[in-house]
Amino acid sequence: MEAVRVGLLGLGTVGSGTVNVLTRNRDEIARRAGRAIEVTRAAARSLDKPRACDVSGIELTDDAMQVATSPDIDVVVELIGGTAQARELVMAAIDHGKHVVTANKALIALHGNEVFEHARVKGVSVAFESAVAGGIPIIKALREGLAGNQIEWLAGIINGTGNYILTEMQAAGRDYADVLAEAQALGYAEADPTFDVEGIDAAHKLTILASIAFGHPLQFDKVFTEGISRLTIDDLHYAADLGYSIKHLGIARRGADGIEMRVHPTLVPERRLIANVDGVLNAVLVQGDAVGPTLYSGAGAGAEPTASAVVADLVDVVRMLHGDPVHRVPYLAFQPDALSDLPVVRMEEVETAYYLRMLVEDRPGVLADISTILAREGISIEAVVQREARGESHVHLVMLIHRVKEGRMNAALAGIEALPAIEGSVMRIRVESLGTD
Amino acid sequence: MEAVRVGLLGLGTVGSGTVNVLTRNRDEIARRAGRAIEVTRAAARSLDKPRACDVSGIELTDDAMQVATSPDIDVVVELIGGTAQARELVMAAIDHGKHVVTANKALIALHGNEVFEHARVKGVSVAFESAVAGGIPIIKALREGLAGNQIEWLAGIINGTGNYILTEMQAAGRDYADVLAEAQALGYAEADPTFDVEGIDAAHKLTILASIAFGHPLQFDKVFTEGISRLTIDDLHYAADLGYSIKHLGIARRGADGIEMRVHPTLVPERRLIANVDGVLNAVLVQGDAVGPTLYSGAGAGAEPTASAVVADLVDVVRMLHGDPVHRVPYLAFQPDALSDLPVVRMEEVETAYYLRMLVEDRPGVLADISTILAREGISIEAVVQREARGESHVHLVMLIHRVKEGRMNAALAGIEALPAIEGSVMRIRVESLGTD
Repeated sequence: MEAVRVGLLGLGTVGSGTVNVLTRNRDEIARRAGRAIEVTRAAARSLDKPRACDVSGIELTDDAMQVATSPDIDVVVELIGGTAQARELVMAAIDHGKHVVTANKALIALHGNEVFEHARVKGVSVAFESAVAGGIPIIKALREGLAGNQIEWLAGIINGTGNYILTEMQAAGRDYADVLAEAQALGYAEADPTFDVEGIDAAHKLTILASIAFGHPLQFDKVFTEGISRLTIDDLHYAADLGYSIKHLGIARRGADGIEMRVHPTLVPERRLIANVDGVLNAVLVQGDAVGPTLYSGAGAGAEPTASAVVADLVDVVRMLHGDPVHRVPYLAFQPDALSDLPVVRMEEVETAYYLRMLVEDRPGVLADISTILAREGISIEAVVQREARGESHVHLVMLIHRVKEGRMNAALAGIEALPAIEGSVMRIRVESLGTD
Repeated sequence: MEAVRVGLLGLGTVGSGTVNVLTRNRDEIARRAGRAIEVTRAAARSLDKPRACDVSGIELTDDAMQVATSPDIDVVVELIGGTAQARELVMAAIDHGKHVVTANKALIALHGNEVFEHARVKGVSVAFESAVAGGIPIIKALREGLAGNQIEWLAGIINGTGNYILTEMQAAGRDYADVLAEAQALGYAEADPTFDVEGIDAAHKLTILASIAFGHPLQFDKVFTEGISRLTIDDLHYAADLGYSIKHLGIARRGADGIEMRVHPTLVPERRLIANVDGVLNAVLVQGDAVGPTLYSGAGAGAEPTASAVVADLVDVVRMLHGDPVHRVPYLAFQPDALSDLPVVRMEEVETAYYLRMLVEDRPGVLADISTILAREGISIEAVVQREARGESHVHLVMLIHRVKEGRMNAALAGIEALPAIEGSVMRIRVESLGTD
């Protein structure tokens, strides 16, 4: 049988990785897919840039639209990133009856509903395993491997840059800014790190995971997002003293009132496996009603880990290249006409436990004042620890708070921050047990 | 569309779990699969036994062959276990054009080649996700999620009973026999625990994982198998002192000379995530050339975790119920005509590092004698520790040995055990770093 012809949009890190994996493992892949898979055309912004892959045999152009719509291409792989041009190219490729594989989490999170509807009408596949958690086959696990379950919740370390920074802060006792600068020098963080450290990238990925888990349309604008840039070494150390790691998690949960979607720093009991996933690694913990908790971990980024997922998608697509679309796995796990309209819960209505850290005057009565405000909101305290704050005349008061709705905690924090004995604002970090023991 | 009609063979723990999951999550499953899935017939050995599931609406019989071949059944789910009757039923179901889902690792490991060939001829699916690592979708991850990779090796905790026993021995400092008795009382271990503790069950599962990873026919008889029944608390503690956990691993590796398949207790650096997978949990660590290491963990047994995998297989099968078999994922990941004939390496030729523990007379010259024998075989020592043996006049000599072929180690051990200063036999446990740091 003739090789399947792939048109590649983008020849950067992941594009080159994809060419390298397809070339190196050509035989192995063909033995699995039943057909060889070949990149025959590729589009790159600059044609005379040195490449990290061998492009001989590939027809290069700087006209991405030409590749996306070329009649001699079976599958288009979109690896240019961004949303404007990528959307245009992907929609055009679908228009021309091409199957699409993309690593573009922003595109799927923001425009996925529209892309999938267009693909459904045209009867083509759109695969995006590489858009979430790099090489970890988490989309496949959630969408197919756990298809018998009602997914109750999932929690993921889905941004490697953020996890690297937290791990280094914890292990080396170094400041956020210091570690970030190093991560930038090492190429783990972008010059503008906002997408990673403020949780936007994680929110894109969480949007996708939540829809696949619960069967609702993609709703990026409803994800609550808080970054890691305010975390201090003190918080990491106090958390460790209390038996917790701090991880930047994307969390989706199905509750009685609807779906929670949130990205924020989270205290996780250090006995959990996911609390020990360090450095640039990613991991996703999924709780299904039948299977219980399952964990998936591995490289969440990088040329070949991401290419691994791109090629897995290609093999899936190739297997069904001319198959009746009815046999395909639905884009968002659930049949398009069976998506639910579960509401997304406002953050004020979300219930979690909390870690609070505040700088207070070291005198009698302060704790009583704080406790009174908490009690007024019906909030109960699990633990209180007082610590010398480094180089401060005040002390750190650290509290663990039992589960309560965010709205009540917001009200209590406003009250506490108004107390004269409190210096500055209160650091509030959510706590999730991620298990039942 | 009409519901897909499932015939269930076996209404024990997993069978009841499957009925319960299919009933409870009926809507959710139909929204994913595009069709409802219903158990319409079931076979049980005894018809008036109380069930752990609601069987109203299911036609019960004690004639399993009747269910397996019934004209009004679309998919047969085999959950009776064992190999003789199960093989007969599965072959008959295939004969009658039924798709088959089975949780039977022994059946697949021992008769899979024949079963798959028959199914290929008849154009039906045989799915067996639940046969390995219970609810963890490891078959799907290996077979599809990592399809772009050359798999270099995999290592799995694939027997929950064994892992429970080792975890308890380590945590509570209790003897093997003591913990085994407790595991039997709790229902984690069978009255005859041989299959679990001697590694036969793990060898069945490893046989399947290795074939899917490397694309060779199933070869259970070539798996090297060593159980955990000889391990002592001392070994667990000495290993911990050296920075290792002892796990009962199934390991498959592709080397220059062929495939290694082995099940044995293994020292694993405790910084590895898999070294921290405790209790009855399972986990599989897979090293792919593109993706690097990925880990999958979760419940490896139990009614609903296993049912979770059975139902996932059902959804896959239902999706392709009347699809052209060319669109299906091959049984063993690789197309049947593209399976390789890679040889399996004899255990004597396998290279690993080692932990040795021996009871020796506490006098000068003993270490020199041992070192001389090791040196003669070209074996180099990484570390030596001497420990007081509990209640013994001799001392424990514990050694870590650099990587060397098993044949050489066997020769050295024969020499060492012949020394007059050595009491009894040497405990030899293989050591695997399972990583590059």
